[in-house]
Amino acid sequence: MTETADYPEDPRPDGWLSARELATARSRLPLLYVDAVPVRVDDSGDVVAVGLLLRVNGAGVMTRALVSGRVMYHERVRDALLRHLEKDLGPVALPQIPAAPQPFTVAEYFPTPGVTPYHDPRQHAVSLAYVVPVSGDCQPQQDALDLAWLTPEEACGEQVQVEMTGGHGYLLRQAMAHVGRLP
Amino acid sequence: MTETADYPEDPRPDGWLSARELATARSRLPLLYVDAVPVRVDDSGDVVAVGLLLRVNGAGVMTRALVSGRVMYHERVRDALLRHLEKDLGPVALPQIPAAPQPFTVAEYFPTPGVTPYHDPRQHAVSLAYVVPVSGDCQPQQDALDLAWLTPEEACGEQVQVEMTGGHGYLLRQAMAHVGRLP
Amino acid sequence: MTETADYPEDPRPDGWLSARELATARSRLPLLYVDAVPVRVDDSGDVVAVGLLLRVNGAGVMTRALVSGRVMYHERVRDALLRHLEKDLGPVALPQIPAAPQPFTVAEYFPTPGVTPYHDPRQHAVSLAYVVPVSGDCQPQQDALDLAWLTPEEACGEQVQVEMTGGHGYLLRQAMAHVGRLP
Amino acid sequence: MTETADYPEDPRPDGWLSARELATARSRLPLLYVDAVPVRVDDSGDVVAVGLLLRVNGAGVMTRALVSGRVMYHERVRDALLRHLEKDLGPVALPQIPAAPQPFTVAEYFPTPGVTPYHDPRQHAVSLAYVVPVSGDCQPQQDALDLAWLTPEEACGEQVQVEMTGGHGYLLRQAMAHVGRLP
Repeated sequence: MTETADYPEDPRPDGWLSARELATARSRLPLLYVDAVPVRVDDSGDVVAVGLLLRVNGAGVMTRALVSGRVMYHERVRDALLRHLEKDLGPVALPQIPAAPQPFTVAEYFPTPGVTPYHDPRQHAVSLAYVVPVSGDCQPQQDALDLAWLTPEEACGEQVQVEMTGGHGYLLRQAMAHVGRLP
Repeated sequence: MTETADYPEDPRPDGWLSARELATARSRLPLLYVDAVPVRVDDSGDVVAVGLLLRVNGAGVMTRALVSGRVMYHERVRDALLRHLEKDLGPVALPQIPAAPQPFTVAEYFPTPGVTPYHDPRQHAVSLAYVVPVSGDCQPQQDALDLAWLTPEEACGEQVQVEMTGGHGYLLRQAMAHVGRLP
Repeated sequence: MTETADYPEDPRPDGWLSARELATARSRLPLLYVDAVPVRVDDSGDVVAVGLLLRVNGAGVMTRALVSGRVMYHERVRDALLRHLEKDLGPVALPQIPAAPQPFTVAEYFPTPGVTPYHDPRQHAVSLAYVVPVSGDCQPQQDALDLAWLTPEEACGEQVQVEMTGGHGYLLRQAMAHVGRLP
Repeated sequence: MTETADYPEDPRPDGWLSARELATARSRLPLLYVDAVPVRVDDSGDVVAVGLLLRVNGAGVMTRALVSGRVMYHERVRDALLRHLEKDLGPVALPQIPAAPQPFTVAEYFPTPGVTPYHDPRQHAVSLAYVVPVSGDCQPQQDALDLAWLTPEEACGEQVQVEMTGGHGYLLRQAMAHVGRLP
């Protein structure tokens, strides 16, 4: 699972975990995440482009990622989705958060590689995955260098897939299968 | 299934059925329909209102209905959804057609009452059902007297449910269960 | 959310939380759960009965519950489903765990009543909910007095609904809406 | 869409179409189909094998196909699924027909290639697609030479995909994405 900063360290709302407490929980409990595949759609809802965040990881390697992040204590899943989309795509992205909580799939990121197609060396994270159309202007925020809009064919192509780590490339292909745009 | 005029009789694109041919097909084949539950949502995607069409039926009785209609030959399901929503709610309703073709349920309208919760005395219709957020201005079209926006609680209430025929009230409650707003 | 003992206190596999650590986590993080609605189906997959566990709670009141429990660290969702179904229904219940991880809904149990239709005074739990046909012999285990098979109509009826706490009655009705058996 | 004989020509239940009437309907209306991806699953519901029918088509070429067929007038979708699975896999295949009518996707077979990933030169068919675990003994019936159980990796491999026509290979990969077994 590609790293996404979940929240600024300070100030932190009451009841959220300190960095140390989060580290302990990460080694003992599955953490609840959401993954969003941002898409552009035409009037008929057909996906015409997929938005991928471009980052440079700690090793100086370029990676591409979906929008991803933790669900906080006392936060609804739909509010977590909105928060992470606005955090990564900017305040005027106008994401269309799904009316129904049913995800298209559940991505299980294990610290041990190979248990599932997803992997997160830091933790066991279970992520509810949604395809989210965005209709507004998107600007990469914080640590992202760029937000690139690719066709489903480009996004599922070999070249882009190798730049996606932890199973995000796999999850993207599942999303494209779900919307009928798997190449 | 509440009647919705599917298309103007004339002119008709090549390959569409004449009224007589449609009558024959209706007595022999399941016809493919789409049902849309138009909703207003807040920024988090939570459903705040449901749009119901008000009509007077042949017997002079007031009825409320979802958006519903046939899928035509060589028409994609997503294009049929858009066509019926624009036909019933007007050209600037701005419906957000789902990116994925997976419906929340399949409503099977039988000419014989009691086989399923849905009933259409005219035909065997199988309908792919979607919840569709609309963000624009909606104006009832054609034969509808009004488009009323009700809360999920009102829409699922006894008084409104009895005004919905053929199982539309049932389908509406299924839609509200799907989005987590069943009262 | 009706209490279900998650696991015997001793012995406990490596890396699982102690009772005290779990208490801390419960006050700070959303915990991941699964909910299963056990059903009997006919050859066509139509639901003919729903299995509800009968328990007496701490206050001496009779309650009915779905199968419910936590997903453990390094446990797949499908393995958690199987474990809880076997724990509550016995080793020869033969549950048909869904091939796909997509739940029919996500139930968000908040410690604060009224945020969602679900409530758990102990914690913020987010539960992936599945309808699970069981074809074998079921025997209530551990703390359950009985496993009763009710028709969908009985299970959604007023009398049974009031015996279900924390939103389990609501989730059951959502499940019945999903399978087309909401009364 | 690979041809599957829908029903014996004689005798035919009342109200079913004659061959000539069906030919006319095929040129004017979308026909309703079901597609089933037969799978073997382990105790946790994980897909371990996919069943594909082997046939020789009119041109003498070997093809592999999913279970597929029409929904008849006054037939429920779940009964059509059961009928086609028993017709193709034999009477003791013991298919686990889904409790819910929600398909994992809707496959739209157009007579014109390229409109969607699916193609059927004979007609416009709209198919509700389900993954169906089968637990019994399967025997290829009628026109099928063999029923082969392949791993998801084999079934999605180049060699098998080219033997699947009309988009069945595509639908199979969508099914594997849905169950988390896309290679």
